Amino acid sequence: MDKEVTIYDIAKGIGVSPTTVSRALNNHPAVKEKTKKKIFQAAAEMGYQSNVFAANLRSKKTNNIGVIVPSLNSSFQASVLAGMEKIANESGYNLVISQSLESADKEIANTRSMFKSRVDGLIVSLASEAEHLDHFSPFHKKGIPVLFYDRITNSENSTGVTIDNIQAAQVATNHMIDQGCRRIVHVLGSTKISVYADRLKGYKYALIDRGFQYEDELVIVLSEINELAAEQVVDQIMQMKPLPDGVFVSNDACAASCMNHLKQRGIRIPEDMSIVGFNNEVISRLVEPKITTINYPGFEMGEVAMRNLINHLDEPETAILHNTNRITLRSELLIRESSLKKK
Amino acid sequence: MDKEVTIYDIAKGIGVSPTTVSRALNNHPAVKEKTKKKIFQAAAEMGYQSNVFAANLRSKKTNNIGVIVPSLNSSFQASVLAGMEKIANESGYNLVISQSLESADKEIANTRSMFKSRVDGLIVSLASEAEHLDHFSPFHKKGIPVLFYDRITNSENSTGVTIDNIQAAQVATNHMIDQGCRRIVHVLGSTKISVYADRLKGYKYALIDRGFQYEDELVIVLSEINELAAEQVVDQIMQMKPLPDGVFVSNDACAASCMNHLKQRGIRIPEDMSIVGFNNEVISRLVEPKITTINYPGFEMGEVAMRNLINHLDEPETAILHNTNRITLRSELLIRESSLKKK
Repeated sequence: MDKEVTIYDIAKGIGVSPTTVSRALNNHPAVKEKTKKKIFQAAAEMGYQSNVFAANLRSKKTNNIGVIVPSLNSSFQASVLAGMEKIANESGYNLVISQSLESADKEIANTRSMFKSRVDGLIVSLASEAEHLDHFSPFHKKGIPVLFYDRITNSENSTGVTIDNIQAAQVATNHMIDQGCRRIVHVLGSTKISVYADRLKGYKYALIDRGFQYEDELVIVLSEINELAAEQVVDQIMQMKPLPDGVFVSNDACAASCMNHLKQRGIRIPEDMSIVGFNNEVISRLVEPKITTINYPGFEMGEVAMRNLINHLDEPETAILHNTNRITLRSELLIRESSLKKK
Repeated sequence: MDKEVTIYDIAKGIGVSPTTVSRALNNHPAVKEKTKKKIFQAAAEMGYQSNVFAANLRSKKTNNIGVIVPSLNSSFQASVLAGMEKIANESGYNLVISQSLESADKEIANTRSMFKSRVDGLIVSLASEAEHLDHFSPFHKKGIPVLFYDRITNSENSTGVTIDNIQAAQVATNHMIDQGCRRIVHVLGSTKISVYADRLKGYKYALIDRGFQYEDELVIVLSEINELAAEQVVDQIMQMKPLPDGVFVSNDACAASCMNHLKQRGIRIPEDMSIVGFNNEVISRLVEPKITTINYPGFEMGEVAMRNLINHLDEPETAILHNTNRITLRSELLIRESSLKKK
C-alpha cells in the first residue's frame, strides 16, 4: 500500500503552508476561494483522505447504521433495503448490513459486532430463533437507538415498524369466506415470528366472527415458508377429509408453488380451491391464475424505518423514538383471479 | 447519551486495578483466567466498548468492505449480497452497501463516500450510465483493491467476476434454433451494460454460425428490462411481419411477463413462439409453461468475489488480484417446457 498522503504533501506540492491546507480543507473563511480551489484539486488528485478515524475519535460518530436481516436472499428484504439505502444515502449515512440466517446465536454475534464497530443506530428484523433481547441492552444502556421492523418485539423500550398483520389476515380470510370458502387452510412460518403469530390470530378471529369453527388440523406451520416447502404442503392438503376449498398462504412464492402442485393433482383454481398469498411479490402477478394477495409495502417500510432513526439521531433532544412504540403502515388486499369463485 | 464506560469504571466495579482490566481485555497471560472471566462479564454487563476509533487509527483498517450495486431491489442482487455477507461475516468483515440506481453521478458520489469512510476494499457492479472509471483511481493509487462483478469493465488494472455471457447467449440461441425457431427476437437492457452487450454478441454469433441473417429489427433494447416493460415489448413483437417464432429475453421476470401478454393475445407457448429467459429466478419455475433459462449463480458469484477480495486483503504479499483480470463462473442452460417445440 502506498504511503498515506498528508496535508504536508499537499502543502509542499503547491507551495503553501500546512496550516493553510488544513484551514482550506476545513473551509476556514481566512483562506481565499482561489487558494481553496487549488488545494481541493490537489487533494483530490493526490488521493488525500481526511483522517476519518481521528475525526470519529472526536465526534464519536461513525455515520454508519447497522441493519440485521434474517436473510438477504428475499425479495421482500431486498425492497426494504432499497428503501433504507435511499434515505440513508440522502442523509449522508452508510448502511452496514449483516444477516442472522434465522439463528439466535448469529443474531447475537452480529449485534455484538455492530456494537463494537460503533454504529450510530441499529435496525433489526428479528431471527425466528431469537428467544430474548438481552443482546440489545448494551445499545439501550448507551442510548444508541434500536428500531425493529417487520419481525418486531412487544418489549417496552423499543420501536417497531410494521403493518397490522392481524387485520390483514382477517381481511384476507373474510374475503375467502365471502367467496364461499367453508374450509380454509392457513399455511404459515414459525409462530415464534411475530408476523406469523399475528396472521394466525387474524385468520382465527375471522373464522370465529363469521361463526366457523377454528380447527388445528387446517393450520400448516412450516419451518421455512418458501417455494420448496410447497410440495409437502400439498401432500398434507390432499390427505385432508373433506378436502379444503381455500388455501391462505403467508408468502407469495410459497402460494404460487402450492398452486402449481395443486393444479398438477387436478385441483382447479379457484373453482375447487381459492388461493390467497401475502406480500404482493412480482410472482403473484405473473402466475396463472393471478394470485390474490396482501400488498406489503416493503420499500416504504424501509424508508419509514430509516427516516425515523435518522430523525432521532439528528435531533436527539426530541428523542421521538423513546415515546414511539409502534409505527403501522397501510396494507391492502389485492383481489385477483385465484380467489374469485363468484364472478 | 450515557457517559462512556471506561476501564476505570470496570476496575472500580470489581475492585481490581485499571492495568489488570486493560491487560485482561487484551488477553494478557499475566492475568488469571478467573479474573479475566470476571472482567469480561463486568465489561459486557456495563456496556463497555473497546475504543475502535483509536484501534483503527493505529491499524488503519476499518474491516469494512464497500459494495456498490445498481439497485438493491433485484432478486439477482439479493442472492449475490447473501453470498457476499456469508463470506464477509465468517472472516470478520462488515458489508457497507450503497446503490447507484443506474446513475453515473450517484456511483461517483457513493465511490467518494466509500473512499472517505476508508473501506478496506470495494466491490462494484457498474451503473448503466457509467461512462468512465476515473472515480476508482484514488483507490488504485492507495492500493485499496477494487473488484467488479456481473457488470464489469475491461480495463487493465481491475479484476472482474462474471459468467461467460457471450457463450451463455450463444447456447440459448442454438437451443432455440435446434427446436426449429427460424425468426428469434432478442430482448435486452442497455448495451452500455457489459452483460447485455455480450449476450447480444452471443445471439448474433449463434445466428451467423448456423447460417441465419442477423436482423436489427428483431432486437428490442429496453432502458429497464423488467416486468413492466413487457407490454411494450409484446406490442412491438405483434407488429412484426412475419411474426417471430421465438423470444429470448435477457431476464426471467421480463420473460414471464412477456409470456403472459403473448398468451393474452392468443399466442401459444411454445407451439407458436418459444420463450427463453435468463437468471433462473424462482419465477421461471412457477409460471406456466415453465421457462427455459440460463442458470446464473448469483449467490456463488457473491461468495467468489468476497473470498477473492478478503484473500487479497489478508495476504497482500501474494497480491493475487493484481494479476487476475477475469474470474469466470460456470453457467448452464436449463431446458424447460417454454422452448420445447419438439417433444
